[in-house]
Amino acid sequence: MSFTDEVEELARRRGFYWPSYEIYGGVGGLYDIGPNGLRVKQKIENLWRHHFLRGSGFAMVEIETPLVTPERVLEASGHVDSFTDPLVVCPNCHRVYRADQLAQEKLGVKTEGMTLDELRDLYKKNEIKCEACGTRLLDVQYFNLLFQTHIGPFTSDLGFLRPETAQGIFTAFKRVYESERRRLPMGVAQVGRVARNEISPRQGLLRMREFTIMEFEFFFDPERGPDPSDFVQKKVKVRWANGESSVENIGSLIESGFLKSPWMGYFMASTLDFMESLGFSADEVTFLEKGERERAHYSAQTFDVVVPTKRWGEVEVAGIAYRTDYDLRRHSQFSGEDLSVSVQLPAPEKRKVVSVKLNRAAIGKRFGERAEDVMKAIYAAAESMRAGSEVASANSGSLEVQTSFGTLELGQEYVKVEVSEELVSTKKVFPHVVEPSFGADRLLYVLLDHGLKEKEGRRVLSLPAAVAPYDVAVFPLIQENGMVKKAVEVLDALRGAGFDALYDEDGTIGRRYARVDEIGVPWAVTVDELSVRGKGVTVRERDTWKQWRVDEARLAEVLSAMKAGKGAGELGLAEERTGGEARKKGREGREREKSW
Amino acid sequence: MSFTDEVEELARRRGFYWPSYEIYGGVGGLYDIGPNGLRVKQKIENLWRHHFLRGSGFAMVEIETPLVTPERVLEASGHVDSFTDPLVVCPNCHRVYRADQLAQEKLGVKTEGMTLDELRDLYKKNEIKCEACGTRLLDVQYFNLLFQTHIGPFTSDLGFLRPETAQGIFTAFKRVYESERRRLPMGVAQVGRVARNEISPRQGLLRMREFTIMEFEFFFDPERGPDPSDFVQKKVKVRWANGESSVENIGSLIESGFLKSPWMGYFMASTLDFMESLGFSADEVTFLEKGERERAHYSAQTFDVVVPTKRWGEVEVAGIAYRTDYDLRRHSQFSGEDLSVSVQLPAPEKRKVVSVKLNRAAIGKRFGERAEDVMKAIYAAAESMRAGSEVASANSGSLEVQTSFGTLELGQEYVKVEVSEELVSTKKVFPHVVEPSFGADRLLYVLLDHGLKEKEGRRVLSLPAAVAPYDVAVFPLIQENGMVKKAVEVLDALRGAGFDALYDEDGTIGRRYARVDEIGVPWAVTVDELSVRGKGVTVRERDTWKQWRVDEARLAEVLSAMKAGKGAGELGLAEERTGGEARKKGREGREREKSW
Repeated sequence: MSFTDEVEELARRRGFYWPSYEIYGGVGGLYDIGPNGLRVKQKIENLWRHHFLRGSGFAMVEIETPLVTPERVLEASGHVDSFTDPLVVCPNCHRVYRADQLAQEKLGVKTEGMTLDELRDLYKKNEIKCEACGTRLLDVQYFNLLFQTHIGPFTSDLGFLRPETAQGIFTAFKRVYESERRRLPMGVAQVGRVARNEISPRQGLLRMREFTIMEFEFFFDPERGPDPSDFVQKKVKVRWANGESSVENIGSLIESGFLKSPWMGYFMASTLDFMESLGFSADEVTFLEKGERERAHYSAQTFDVVVPTKRWGEVEVAGIAYRTDYDLRRHSQFSGEDLSVSVQLPAPEKRKVVSVKLNRAAIGKRFGERAEDVMKAIYAAAESMRAGSEVASANSGSLEVQTSFGTLELGQEYVKVEVSEELVSTKKVFPHVVEPSFGADRLLYVLLDHGLKEKEGRRVLSLPAAVAPYDVAVFPLIQENGMVKKAVEVLDALRGAGFDALYDEDGTIGRRYARVDEIGVPWAVTVDELSVRGKGVTVRERDTWKQWRVDEARLAEVLSAMKAGKGAGELGLAEERTGGEARKKGREGREREKSW
Repeated sequence: MSFTDEVEELARRRGFYWPSYEIYGGVGGLYDIGPNGLRVKQKIENLWRHHFLRGSGFAMVEIETPLVTPERVLEASGHVDSFTDPLVVCPNCHRVYRADQLAQEKLGVKTEGMTLDELRDLYKKNEIKCEACGTRLLDVQYFNLLFQTHIGPFTSDLGFLRPETAQGIFTAFKRVYESERRRLPMGVAQVGRVARNEISPRQGLLRMREFTIMEFEFFFDPERGPDPSDFVQKKVKVRWANGESSVENIGSLIESGFLKSPWMGYFMASTLDFMESLGFSADEVTFLEKGERERAHYSAQTFDVVVPTKRWGEVEVAGIAYRTDYDLRRHSQFSGEDLSVSVQLPAPEKRKVVSVKLNRAAIGKRFGERAEDVMKAIYAAAESMRAGSEVASANSGSLEVQTSFGTLELGQEYVKVEVSEELVSTKKVFPHVVEPSFGADRLLYVLLDHGLKEKEGRRVLSLPAAVAPYDVAVFPLIQENGMVKKAVEVLDALRGAGFDALYDEDGTIGRRYARVDEIGVPWAVTVDELSVRGKGVTVRERDTWKQWRVDEARLAEVLSAMKAGKGAGELGLAEERTGGEARKKGREGREREKSW
């Protein structure tokens, strides 16, 4: 069994994940998250909320918007036009391939970001054949990855499933901004499902047709960056779009202008902190700058956040995109609602005020049917003066305007233009947006990939305690001599103290340790004969199989400290002096071990 | 402004909910849940998990399955055929109505559960006109409420958005049952989005096209009911399908056979407990038995759980359905996977064993092309003997079978049938299912409807502390004399102690109290000049506007006790002896109140 098969096999058998609708043969790209997988995933989600929302010093809120999205919204966002992948169909057996991925596999050339014409050219010049029937492939086309549906009983009301939660946030921006009392910066998050109709999904949880995204749109005044603080000292590993790599601190990346917004740096640092809290070292986390043609259509700069895996090499678990004011501008334009906001200027500024007084009667008399055209030309001239251009002879008594029937010079009998200056302390801006976006299911997968280890021929899932499905397991050594009763007391006490505790009394103690090792429970507490006599319980550590005897009264405190990273030594615990846990338990509990 | 408008107005202004894609004019039945609404909703969800999953004595797990569902699964479940509503279209202006609801409104007759023919008849016999253009309506048809889509690049691969999470649970049943080590009873829950393409949704959060369901399928051996415990004493208010009402304890409902499974009673009691934890009295919660024609196609008995609202009358917030083994049987049949399980019999039982030995050669020789047909007939005969029927002359040496070409008598040269008995201790059964299902958004709505009150001309949202968006607010009285610093200390201490605390320093203290009253924060802690001098902070109660001075060191303990329902008297707190909070605060803080 290859390593991947082991992860998948464990995932299915121990309730982490499996293909959805398996009894019907499954559907590519759809997975169920099972009881243990969901425990881990929910802990990842809550850790994310804790880190990015509650733990931040900014106004950060979470909202929930629908998956079903009307066409107009995704037209405005650009997804109806741009959210496509190239596919190639076999003319003989009709099998469908991702055209870029297949060409890359077959020809060994980098195809990400190629245009349709370039790909077609590639297929024309190279003979790429169908893997199923050997027919030559040529028919490369774009396929839109939005799941399409209809909203309500009319088939004309086209809708799509959202491919990202962002558009729900942008269309709700005004409401949230108002309810949060108009403050910038402001982060608006969603943790929710999105759907992408992948052409031929492979790679398990890494390429799903429906998955959970954790993302926020961080809205800021483009003229105000983050306060410099510790984050600028954080060192990050970057692979730039030009192919170069560097390990530098965020501060110097900002100063040298490599980052298109200092907030990009802020959230790179914060993302690295988050990945570290999931057990990844700074060295394992690479920020991969996307080239201009690889970026999404809305992005001025994007870094993929990748970590190494045993099976799939580098895997993207997050992306940080500088969406600028693209989305708010587009939605303003498409909806007619002004989504710009008023921000305080650092200091009051002088601003040119252009006021225009028209003599409509005089204009009408002179220009007749063309009066409307002339007035539009006057407004256009005033607008360009507001924008700073010096329109000929304003204030000199006459105004030069461009109409559809030629240039006119209009005297004061038609229009009076006055230009003055005033002090203003606010201005209207479209907030800019940096968007950190994480894949919850991908994080679940990489945690399993990283965590699954072999120890003396057995599998141990070495998950960080913060995201383990349970904090602790509680076992009676055997179902005799009051051990069950005492174990249930210990269980209740731990649950009362806030621990996520699992109870198991079935099978040998060895089997039970093996079971909780496989699902990643960091500690197992065993109640034996000594425990019943008030002499403490044993605490066994998943990763080392070491055991310590701990006073029942100190148990919650000891486990809390261990969860916080303290070692047994620091806690003054003495290891149980036995040769092997199986033998020791056998002696203590007079129980035969059959399964080791 | 009507009361409803007030709830909606508050919901929009204070970030509870608003129509999705509002800047594009909105889409019927789609709502965004805003920051404060989501805080309440997530607390409802977690309370639900705590009550039904972690708080139960059974194996109860949660999983997560996709919204996108292939056609075959919803064919098996019956939704492709049965998940319909009747609509009527105006032949002139093409406006669409829910045919049953419109008829009920216009004619005052009960239409729920009417067949298409009955509705058509109703429209034929009565003149019902289009509300928009006055044209007579006649064209009643069924409309399937499943949102339809295509999975992958082939339009032949039809898919739907799930209308309930249940089918994801049924199709995953085997995996979960294995990973939970084959124990019954077992509950499998989902909290997730579902989508129903309502014809013309109205009533805000009560009739959404996409919403969050909290439900579990409780799988049990139909021969084993719950252990009788406290729950049988619980009294519930029931309105029966025959129109009668009763208030009886669950035990007698089970004994008298009114409930089709004792587990229905168990979960009615548990549901009432849950509703009580949300602040509803037993008197406000009615279990409404659905008539045979009003029930979903899979249900042998259903109770809607309804509570009164100020605006919409009785509102359904949950349903408890006895789905029997309908779904597991249907999926076994449609998928070919046997979803029955082996259960222990209370005592070993004798079972008839029918073994069949065929002489294929002899059958082939005699029947030629019809041999296959004969063998099928033999298997069918054996199967019906296993099921108990006495097939003619078995054991007598010959077997009578029904083939497509007539009845045959087969001697021992063709087939030997032996019938014996053996003792067995297990048997195969399809687990039966009771499904309690709750609408998270509807619960959010009814909590707002119940909670919104007027006090001295101001709005107060009287939410139970367990589901308030924040536990407590912390305010410096004014931004002077060290009060901000002290308030932030108090805030950090409360957050450290696990409180969900809001901080606000903007505007007068009166405005801030008003703000947190409106979003339902049960307590506000104010730091004033006395606090800075170590003389305690004030705790103000949302519902009474009473205030008590509390030692800073005791604050967390006092708030915990209050959250647990303790009164100030019990806690030995003395009310601040001031005439009115505005005047008092004005004196203490030398601040003018402008807004009271």
